[in-house]
Amino acid sequence: MRIAVLGVGLIGGSIGLAARRRLDAEVVGSGRSPERLRRAVELGAIDRGVDSVAAACEEAELVFCAGPVAALPDQAREALAASGPETVVTDVGSTKGELVEAVGADERFIGGHPLAGAETAGVENARADLFEGARWYLTPTEQASGVLYDRLQRAVSALGARPQAIDPEGHDRLMATVSHLPHVLANALASEAAESLTQGTDRLPDVGPSFRDATRVAGSNPAIWADIFASNREAVALSVDSVAERLREAAELIRSGDREALAAWHAAAGEDRNCLLESEAESGPLRELRIVVTNKPGTIAELALALGEAGVNIEDMALHPAPDMTSGAVSLWVAGPEQAAKAMQRVRELGHTASVLDG
Amino acid sequence: MRIAVLGVGLIGGSIGLAARRRLDAEVVGSGRSPERLRRAVELGAIDRGVDSVAAACEEAELVFCAGPVAALPDQAREALAASGPETVVTDVGSTKGELVEAVGADERFIGGHPLAGAETAGVENARADLFEGARWYLTPTEQASGVLYDRLQRAVSALGARPQAIDPEGHDRLMATVSHLPHVLANALASEAAESLTQGTDRLPDVGPSFRDATRVAGSNPAIWADIFASNREAVALSVDSVAERLREAAELIRSGDREALAAWHAAAGEDRNCLLESEAESGPLRELRIVVTNKPGTIAELALALGEAGVNIEDMALHPAPDMTSGAVSLWVAGPEQAAKAMQRVRELGHTASVLDG
Repeated sequence: MRIAVLGVGLIGGSIGLAARRRLDAEVVGSGRSPERLRRAVELGAIDRGVDSVAAACEEAELVFCAGPVAALPDQAREALAASGPETVVTDVGSTKGELVEAVGADERFIGGHPLAGAETAGVENARADLFEGARWYLTPTEQASGVLYDRLQRAVSALGARPQAIDPEGHDRLMATVSHLPHVLANALASEAAESLTQGTDRLPDVGPSFRDATRVAGSNPAIWADIFASNREAVALSVDSVAERLREAAELIRSGDREALAAWHAAAGEDRNCLLESEAESGPLRELRIVVTNKPGTIAELALALGEAGVNIEDMALHPAPDMTSGAVSLWVAGPEQAAKAMQRVRELGHTASVLDG
Repeated sequence: MRIAVLGVGLIGGSIGLAARRRLDAEVVGSGRSPERLRRAVELGAIDRGVDSVAAACEEAELVFCAGPVAALPDQAREALAASGPETVVTDVGSTKGELVEAVGADERFIGGHPLAGAETAGVENARADLFEGARWYLTPTEQASGVLYDRLQRAVSALGARPQAIDPEGHDRLMATVSHLPHVLANALASEAAESLTQGTDRLPDVGPSFRDATRVAGSNPAIWADIFASNREAVALSVDSVAERLREAAELIRSGDREALAAWHAAAGEDRNCLLESEAESGPLRELRIVVTNKPGTIAELALALGEAGVNIEDMALHPAPDMTSGAVSLWVAGPEQAAKAMQRVRELGHTASVLDG
């Protein structure tokens, strides 16, 4: 089987690595930078590199368009023009509606989006197991060939991922809510704080852990995110407007000072979050352990090591340092009551104070 | 020196521990639960417990009102009524305007708010060093006695904290932005996602790390937060309205699809965040290291241990697990370029791929 990968960054490189190892495929990569193609060959991500889309697609059964989001429509059209009637062309972009519309009716094109790798970039970070267990959305249109769809979803499974069909608009609405919207909110909060805190003061005040968590992704990778926002503009704008409306209502509720209604609203939001996160953890709802620690080098290590020895896997972690960073608390999330109980025991054996938080 | 602590939870208990150890003070605690007072004596947080505010304030030079936010006005008035002319009465609540107004003009009352301990609760978690290096806001009014203010700020310093005077309204606006607002946004995002994702689907889709980070504090401690929102309603509602307006503008910008303007807006938010966080780190701006890891028990420990041995302190940490939790990346924040360079070297020696992120 020959596979073409157009663009050998993190995702393209990982597809190459996995396809060579798990599908025993011959992988041809294309890209503008000869240096990057050489590096991809060295790393075993592709068998060889070529300098044009047409050359890469020659005799390929499966073509992955893995360029930047804004470049995908042209890349996909070029790939379709260069490919034979039995070739399936797909992509790995974060948004689907605009692309699928731009490509138009071609039974050989099926959009795709693996939920993996957002945290790093570059072929240097590519891994054969990047997609292991990851959701991989596929957006076949009514025109899509059933045979080609079947080949694509088998290939995606073979790469280790869990393929799932979804319509392009549904996909984009989903991503708008769980991924694009949090980035917009982080930006709005960071800018609001910067503007209101720098008014009339000489020095900036301390900000806390809730601010750090809430703005973690503010401003990351402006070029990539500008493309994502632009190509999913309708769905993202709708989500943002909807949250703006929720905030107007929240402001009104807060102004009322009605403690009972405020507590109910706040508690409902916590339940909403838990319900969404619990659907993620296979082995049970996530439990949060709060542990009081001395924040010196080695403390977190000691904790993590002890939990590792006890067979407890840390699903997520957050530090809440005191302002001088000498002490504080750490939150660990573990899956299910059993892991939580095991973790609590080990943490207490180490002499730390800890509690499992409600909800 | 005799000190009264009205309410022996985390903050009251920690004041007691620190005052007994560092000020050699006699600490009298009051509270409704005899059991909790006994526990506080056992833990060394107070010398003795009494069942009334009046009994606790007898002959005290310094009175800390440490009850729930909603109870503070009554508690402070009661303490003032029971205290002599030379006693300074303060509190530790998260909001100041409403309380200061309720107490009215009394030269013996000076509001206070230590920025510490929000991450846990209960006298069991009390620590003598809870306030070490922590900002402790004091809100003297024009009526406040200079002598009593001086005594209070010396005591706060002796507890290990860094006192800073601020007017009650300024304090509440500040807290509204960096603390209360992030909680409101987390709530709005959690509820938006829950509503839009449960429409017409049988199962919930995967949510990602940006969603987890952005909703971390959603719905925590409804009773406490209802009190905080209610008692700081004006400032919080203003901040929330302001962010809602920012979101309307963001939605418009996103709808325009203007990539250049989107990239500029996004990058500006990143700069805003960095500028706020950099003011926190004493030893230099925070650097984010992204490290690709296998997410099995022990990996994080190995990393943290190696960095600890190298003298690198981890200021903040976030895991980005792959959906199946078998692999992923971890972000570590360290202060300043030297710590970052040291950390990178150790991480690479361990065989991990890592990069220092821009901005």
